Amino acid sequence: MKIHNFSAGPSILPQEVFDEASVAVKDLNGSGLSILEISHRSKAFVDILDEAVSLVGELLKIGSEHKVLFLSGGASTQFAMVPLNFLNEGASASYVDTGTWSAKAIKEARAFGNINLLASSKEDQYRHIPKGYDIPSGDAYLHITTNNTVYGTQFREIPSSPIPIVADMSSDIFSRPVDINKYGLIYAGAQKNMGPAGTTLVVVREDMVGKAERHVPSMWNYKTHIAKNSSFNTPPVFPIYVSMLNLRWVRKNGGIEAMEKRSMERAKLIYDEVDRNPLFTGTTQKEDRSRMNATFLLADGYRNLEEEFLKQCKEAGISGIKGHRSVGGFRASMYNALKLESVQLLVDVMRDLERRKG
Amino acid sequence: MKIHNFSAGPSILPQEVFDEASVAVKDLNGSGLSILEISHRSKAFVDILDEAVSLVGELLKIGSEHKVLFLSGGASTQFAMVPLNFLNEGASASYVDTGTWSAKAIKEARAFGNINLLASSKEDQYRHIPKGYDIPSGDAYLHITTNNTVYGTQFREIPSSPIPIVADMSSDIFSRPVDINKYGLIYAGAQKNMGPAGTTLVVVREDMVGKAERHVPSMWNYKTHIAKNSSFNTPPVFPIYVSMLNLRWVRKNGGIEAMEKRSMERAKLIYDEVDRNPLFTGTTQKEDRSRMNATFLLADGYRNLEEEFLKQCKEAGISGIKGHRSVGGFRASMYNALKLESVQLLVDVMRDLERRKG
Repeated sequence: MKIHNFSAGPSILPQEVFDEASVAVKDLNGSGLSILEISHRSKAFVDILDEAVSLVGELLKIGSEHKVLFLSGGASTQFAMVPLNFLNEGASASYVDTGTWSAKAIKEARAFGNINLLASSKEDQYRHIPKGYDIPSGDAYLHITTNNTVYGTQFREIPSSPIPIVADMSSDIFSRPVDINKYGLIYAGAQKNMGPAGTTLVVVREDMVGKAERHVPSMWNYKTHIAKNSSFNTPPVFPIYVSMLNLRWVRKNGGIEAMEKRSMERAKLIYDEVDRNPLFTGTTQKEDRSRMNATFLLADGYRNLEEEFLKQCKEAGISGIKGHRSVGGFRASMYNALKLESVQLLVDVMRDLERRKG
Repeated sequence: MKIHNFSAGPSILPQEVFDEASVAVKDLNGSGLSILEISHRSKAFVDILDEAVSLVGELLKIGSEHKVLFLSGGASTQFAMVPLNFLNEGASASYVDTGTWSAKAIKEARAFGNINLLASSKEDQYRHIPKGYDIPSGDAYLHITTNNTVYGTQFREIPSSPIPIVADMSSDIFSRPVDINKYGLIYAGAQKNMGPAGTTLVVVREDMVGKAERHVPSMWNYKTHIAKNSSFNTPPVFPIYVSMLNLRWVRKNGGIEAMEKRSMERAKLIYDEVDRNPLFTGTTQKEDRSRMNATFLLADGYRNLEEEFLKQCKEAGISGIKGHRSVGGFRASMYNALKLESVQLLVDVMRDLERRKG
């Protein structure tokens, strides 16, 4: 049976990426060697890394002010690396709290300097994205989490900021255009729209690095990785290779503009059904709905149908639809590689439940 | 043509591991999902991680005092994490300098506390492993690098130490028995005897963690990863999966004792030829020769044959034999998965050169 993978991450990637990666695990480009056994200093891998960096630059329209790095340690490592590098003792940085991940970023940053919590939607169970706050122009940076996988909200507009924005784009990078000039640093764990788990994309404005007043260990210093082209130590070869294959697929399929159009189509299909079907209800403010992670619940009076709906989904080959425990209900994560037909299938199952139980 | 992979790392793994990993990239255990798209919270992955942890414990005979972690960031991250967690300000730690990697570990540690450099073979171009030094009993730990990939030396005997040993075993773990009671912490980048690049094994004595007096960010605190069974954040799923497959292979093929026996056979074959063949000469003190990385040069009078020998190797399908630039000459890295027949082939090429040019 074909599985329709709605997992929040690690998540679906295109079938042709799996196919090509599977071949390379046995034999990379006819070399007689597996991608898993080649030196990270070999021409074969240096070419792969260079191509991955170049694809990121092309897709996100990154100019020469910013550097593209492939690191490891996940976005959670960036929660500490960002203030370690950019927030000197006694200085301040601005954060907006929009959910689980931004709260973790704030917690890690507090140990390094003063944190101005500009806004938070915590009191509202993170059902909206705060707007209309002032951003102190003297702060080192403004940190935001552009998409919230847990609560299903997304910054539809990136704030105008007098200071460089540091953005955790783990769950919506490569799904819409990025105005690179707004950003001091962008980071993203690979395991949604970029590739498999095991590498972390960092795009950083070069003039911001190397200015920390405290000691920064080599591996946690952006300067090190810029100087060594992400190969100061052995990089995560295979996760970078698969990310490169996936970025090739993004380009071949129309680039960021096409990815954004597809994400809008998927989001419209599911949210229209959530709003139309009397058995379901959305969990967030409509204008802040995420195009990546649609969260929804059974409406009052139908809550007892949860197990039945999950069973129906499973029988249809729909995987990973159960909501995060903080929100309950359901979550349809719809990353770049998810086809519209998978969302249609989910909608069909929702309609079938309505026909039978509505 | 079959390639005989002598790469220093990332390095050869068993063919059956490549075969099984290749299948799982398309379909993990008939689930209809790729290993690259499953959630790290899924039962499928939790089982994989549990089995990997259990295999490490069984193979290295690890008792309940130590915890097994699969992290990311490579051994280079451990160079800083070890003193960050274990070396309080004003306290001292002992280090032995035996080459490139221990020198890097020492450099990172100096920022955190006092370093007692007990011994160094730097003046001897790292051609031997220092012995006969006193280990201060008041130091937090003794750090050693058990095998030196660059210079081709190895601690044949681990020192008796009044303090816990912290050992970088990146390049010889799972090639010989480990007396776990000697160690406070063992770390190893996966990409030699354990698996592909992208995960780092840490085995740590639980009673040593959580005692740092300074602030330790969550991701760099061993306590975090012990508490969350290496899943505080998304772990490097695929590198851990392949490591698990490889550790299964180690067990199926006789465990650590069999791996040690095989490593002795490979080492004897190559070093006997280096010592017998008048065209070649070893680079290190014989008693400290590494069983993992055999370094050798063309002897005086034959140095002009370097290009020719490398060409011959290439024609025979021998890959990765060029020495590190710090030493020059040749380096035969012979990790667990390398067959004796590959070493025999290299010896045949050395003999052929002797016949034609000796």
